[in-house]
Amino acid sequence: MTTDIDVKVREVGLRDGLQSVQAFFPTPSKIAWIEAEAAAGVPEIEVCSFVPAKVIAQFTDAAEVVEASLQQTGLEVSALIPNKKGAERGFEVGVHKLNYVTSVSESHNMANVRRTVADSVAAFRDIAALRDQNPEWRNVKLAGGLSTAFGCTIEGPVDPVAVLKLAQAYVEAGADELSVADTVGYANPAQVKDMFVMLKRELGDVPLAGHFHDTRGLGLANVHAALEAGVREFDASLAGLGGCPFAPGATGNIVMDDLVFMLEAMGMKTGVDLDRLVAVRDIIARELPEEPLYGAIARAKPPKGFHPAGAGRQAAE
Amino acid sequence: MTTDIDVKVREVGLRDGLQSVQAFFPTPSKIAWIEAEAAAGVPEIEVCSFVPAKVIAQFTDAAEVVEASLQQTGLEVSALIPNKKGAERGFEVGVHKLNYVTSVSESHNMANVRRTVADSVAAFRDIAALRDQNPEWRNVKLAGGLSTAFGCTIEGPVDPVAVLKLAQAYVEAGADELSVADTVGYANPAQVKDMFVMLKRELGDVPLAGHFHDTRGLGLANVHAALEAGVREFDASLAGLGGCPFAPGATGNIVMDDLVFMLEAMGMKTGVDLDRLVAVRDIIARELPEEPLYGAIARAKPPKGFHPAGAGRQAAE
Repeated sequence: MTTDIDVKVREVGLRDGLQSVQAFFPTPSKIAWIEAEAAAGVPEIEVCSFVPAKVIAQFTDAAEVVEASLQQTGLEVSALIPNKKGAERGFEVGVHKLNYVTSVSESHNMANVRRTVADSVAAFRDIAALRDQNPEWRNVKLAGGLSTAFGCTIEGPVDPVAVLKLAQAYVEAGADELSVADTVGYANPAQVKDMFVMLKRELGDVPLAGHFHDTRGLGLANVHAALEAGVREFDASLAGLGGCPFAPGATGNIVMDDLVFMLEAMGMKTGVDLDRLVAVRDIIARELPEEPLYGAIARAKPPKGFHPAGAGRQAAE
Repeated sequence: MTTDIDVKVREVGLRDGLQSVQAFFPTPSKIAWIEAEAAAGVPEIEVCSFVPAKVIAQFTDAAEVVEASLQQTGLEVSALIPNKKGAERGFEVGVHKLNYVTSVSESHNMANVRRTVADSVAAFRDIAALRDQNPEWRNVKLAGGLSTAFGCTIEGPVDPVAVLKLAQAYVEAGADELSVADTVGYANPAQVKDMFVMLKRELGDVPLAGHFHDTRGLGLANVHAALEAGVREFDASLAGLGGCPFAPGATGNIVMDDLVFMLEAMGMKTGVDLDRLVAVRDIIARELPEEPLYGAIARAKPPKGFHPAGAGRQAAE
């Protein structure tokens, strides 16, 4: 993590947002989005998903998008991988970090990646071994994602003990960090705080990130609860891309611009220039005129007399 | 406060919401809204404002609305008052609680009620004396409202010391409780937690309520921060009535239905039946078809397997 920031925000809109958008987002516009956010000071972007093109056509340009992303100075470039094949593609194009996903809920994992949680962990172990055996790949970070950690649309409540077990299995298998995800927007602040307090107590100093969806309006309250438990890394999507007001159970990520505003207002440096970040929304609005964009700070503007906690990377030049 | 609840939610949509709505909301529909929310278990409703009709025409039916509200079993009926004349009207119609307002910011107080903060406090002292001198009015609670406590559209940042001074002046003048308000949606969770921790330390056991607007998306995160500081009373507006997506600086209250969902999901009993509460939105939607209604839980529904913290007053019968 960049040492001059207090909280690391990670853009996931190009993956978690775009994967639910039917229209193909043109490659030059994806790259423009990444360039503009990197220039605004966003330290990490999940730029694509290495899934088969027949599963999600949005990511057929993954290699090209990664290549352009790696040109951005100071940007940590990550990509989602569902399996070993995706990992190999990720290693080959040279991303800095691979975000592997397993659902804590067995039913959800079966529906999502068609195997048991144990088989998912075994595949992660193979990926870690693959990395460790290849000198060129040894510096690639592996993040273990724990989906449906706060509840599942199929099973309902999820046992925190199952979350801990998967987290421990990931760490034993070689994970460098973990991402604990409220994939379907079920979490509440009490649950979030309890979960992260427990995980930090049991896991020690493994870096933990929070990934929240704003499906039920509690996204930023959940971030606050995680902050209280000491979490300092969060995923978000610019303009909340990926939600849909017309679908019951809309599952948009929390809004990146509102997250940055909240953190900076709280005195926590993100390294991001809020004005420049908000301006990047224009790229999405231009390419996806039919898609609903979310966010309060873009509409209301920061309060009179508002001062960010720290100057952005660019602004500090 | 009802003893079988953990957190008291207070509906302010009939006052804070309707005061920004141009169309007159028919009296029978106001009463239907109050009856339905009381039946859903909402323990307190601010049913009107005792302001001159020429200032806000929405409240010309205040006496009739209060009379009907007082018929609801177990409902605490409150009303906003800007001055002594409003207080007299409130005492005469028999409300249970009068919510007096003063802005912490001198400029805002001058713009809002055309006098200094000191003059506002002096008028509050007169109101308390009026109450204490009249045996019939002696049981009416007086709440001191601290508007713009977290920032002001005219002055920008507001000094927490000024908030404490107004709070202490209110208590010395006879306030039974205080309501600390983020009138213009400037607050952030760190500020909210610090403010309430300080106020509770300095004021002792004076009941404190939080009043938040969701202008910049931080409303429920601010509630969570206040909960962490021990606050157990919150204002909210059903469907967030009063905000406007077309006006920069929209200032809607936090959404009552989302607030109740958050609290119940956290295991905190509100006494409110969430399903019945959400159904009351229909009354607003019918009367104000052009008005934007807000709220995530009404659209997304509670999570699978969701159990409220406690049965509502009605459901417990």
